[in-house]
Amino acid sequence: MENIQGIKSVYLDDEKNIVVILDQTLLPREKVFLEVDKIEDLYEAIHSLRVRGAPAIGIAAAYGVYLFTKLVEAGDFESLYEAFKKNKDYIESSRPTAVNLSWALKRMENRLISEKDKKVDEIKLALLDEANQIREEDEAVCKAIGENALTLLKDGYGLLTHCNPGGIATAKYGTALAPIFLGLERGVNFKVFVDETRPLLQGARLTAWELHESGVDTTLICDNMAATVMNQGKVNAVLVGCDRVALNGDSANKIGTMPLAIVAKHFNIPFYVCAPISTIDISCKDENDIEIEIRNGDEITEKWYENRVAPKGVKTYNPCFDVTPNNLITAIITEKGIIYPPFHEGIKKLFEGDK
Amino acid sequence: MENIQGIKSVYLDDEKNIVVILDQTLLPREKVFLEVDKIEDLYEAIHSLRVRGAPAIGIAAAYGVYLFTKLVEAGDFESLYEAFKKNKDYIESSRPTAVNLSWALKRMENRLISEKDKKVDEIKLALLDEANQIREEDEAVCKAIGENALTLLKDGYGLLTHCNPGGIATAKYGTALAPIFLGLERGVNFKVFVDETRPLLQGARLTAWELHESGVDTTLICDNMAATVMNQGKVNAVLVGCDRVALNGDSANKIGTMPLAIVAKHFNIPFYVCAPISTIDISCKDENDIEIEIRNGDEITEKWYENRVAPKGVKTYNPCFDVTPNNLITAIITEKGIIYPPFHEGIKKLFEGDK
Repeated sequence: MENIQGIKSVYLDDEKNIVVILDQTLLPREKVFLEVDKIEDLYEAIHSLRVRGAPAIGIAAAYGVYLFTKLVEAGDFESLYEAFKKNKDYIESSRPTAVNLSWALKRMENRLISEKDKKVDEIKLALLDEANQIREEDEAVCKAIGENALTLLKDGYGLLTHCNPGGIATAKYGTALAPIFLGLERGVNFKVFVDETRPLLQGARLTAWELHESGVDTTLICDNMAATVMNQGKVNAVLVGCDRVALNGDSANKIGTMPLAIVAKHFNIPFYVCAPISTIDISCKDENDIEIEIRNGDEITEKWYENRVAPKGVKTYNPCFDVTPNNLITAIITEKGIIYPPFHEGIKKLFEGDK
Repeated sequence: MENIQGIKSVYLDDEKNIVVILDQTLLPREKVFLEVDKIEDLYEAIHSLRVRGAPAIGIAAAYGVYLFTKLVEAGDFESLYEAFKKNKDYIESSRPTAVNLSWALKRMENRLISEKDKKVDEIKLALLDEANQIREEDEAVCKAIGENALTLLKDGYGLLTHCNPGGIATAKYGTALAPIFLGLERGVNFKVFVDETRPLLQGARLTAWELHESGVDTTLICDNMAATVMNQGKVNAVLVGCDRVALNGDSANKIGTMPLAIVAKHFNIPFYVCAPISTIDISCKDENDIEIEIRNGDEITEKWYENRVAPKGVKTYNPCFDVTPNNLITAIITEKGIIYPPFHEGIKKLFEGDK
């Protein structure tokens, strides 16, 4: 089955005129693929976080705006463009602050405009091509991260990961999970410890699910048990994703990543950050330039629970991310290669090579 | 109110013929003091963990065996002893493996026997005296730990703690919480960060409750957020309890304690273990002699939750404790003084002094 190794959470069935979306809100209890054939349902799926993960959202939007524009009977470019714009604005309003959503839709619009002198049917095919490219490029980025990571890992290694740097947030493979899924395709197997990742439990709900579902040897632990399995020699490398990397290599990721790096260093275990180039923000000099979102304490005291688990009125502090300083990171693994310390040099080279 | 500073979770009302027990199973949602006037209810309270914490269980058993023996009309020592033994055996069977339960009941029996030549009423008074002594000795131990700890702390310090080294597990004050409650009585105030302590959430349910209830400036965080508040300079000292201390100072405590010690060392924050002498086990040379209980993974995946949060069939690993190696511990604070490295020397001295 196509989805076994690196589950595809979003894809198009162009013959059936549906966008297929894995409903991530039902995980890990149910694996339901929504067959979206109405634009209102696509809006709802994005709005209600049924599809989540920046790349996956962008892909869903691109396929959606293609499909629901294709289904319009338009006689000329102007009427097609009008229908496209209406669809685009509506989809974009489903999560107004999601950068990848706007980015993917803008890219679709640019392609549409660039094809304006062609026939309507040809323009529709160009839109399909652009949406496919968005998906394929993301898959290629994830796969390349996986390839590069695999050069650092050996068959049978114990790995530890945190949060959901996973396939279902991307086109396929994910970031920190990419070497695991890619390894599966090639008979390279790992034993993976998954931090549950309090308070939102992305590790327990999503990462443990997609690894277990794919047949990976997966063990779920509480965040505070990671040190014990490291101390027992069961972990050969820690692999995490990231939300933003500064020019000096300081890396923001889900809360709980920084102590993992401290503990890994204590036990002399390599700590790898898997980062698509798109997450490197050279406008941030270091961790001081990275703002940390503080979220509502109800996520700690009430969410998921049958009964509230903390006394009423007690203060909480719920930072969503922490920043791992560069001196705790063994290497940053990107789709364009592995960067070692001093990171600012490797990062600068990477961006200069882009010019 | 007597219970404000260091909540008393177990006490006797000898006039009303009741043992009063704080029902810890209802925390933190309800503060209910059970008025136990039947031995069956005492059995149930211990069996169902309504009273928990080794010292608190011992105190409940001592008061219980006194009270329900006092209420027996016995003409002579033999019939009193017979009634006592029946009560003792019944109470002891409520949690057969709880060491403090047997210990306290044995001590009560020894006192009873040593008073055998006295009148029945006098023997009953001796039993009351013994139960009071058990309670008072525990309170004195906790208070002395608090006194010693306070010499290391300054008014206004930020403290971080884990699990429930709390007043409600003891006669009063607790172990690692003792300086906080004792400080409250003296106008010495701390800002306390409480780890929720996955998977059983003793920090969220019990420690946050008793500190907040007592008016301490309390902030609840997830275990994986401790490094962030340490990095922000908000923590001047980490204070934890312990379950067992080896001769070399290696200390077993609730899972998640060892990574806290690693992170505290990384940030140059003192890490204090608060340990009644009774938890020092000189028959254990070091951490290799301390066996770690592995508990059922349902505590990670199902307990507390409205819906299971992990995929069915995924493996889990749920060690209940970890061992903090002596080189990560700044000092061990006992009721007889503060022990600094090398711990084996200080511990030997302490035990030699006992002879």
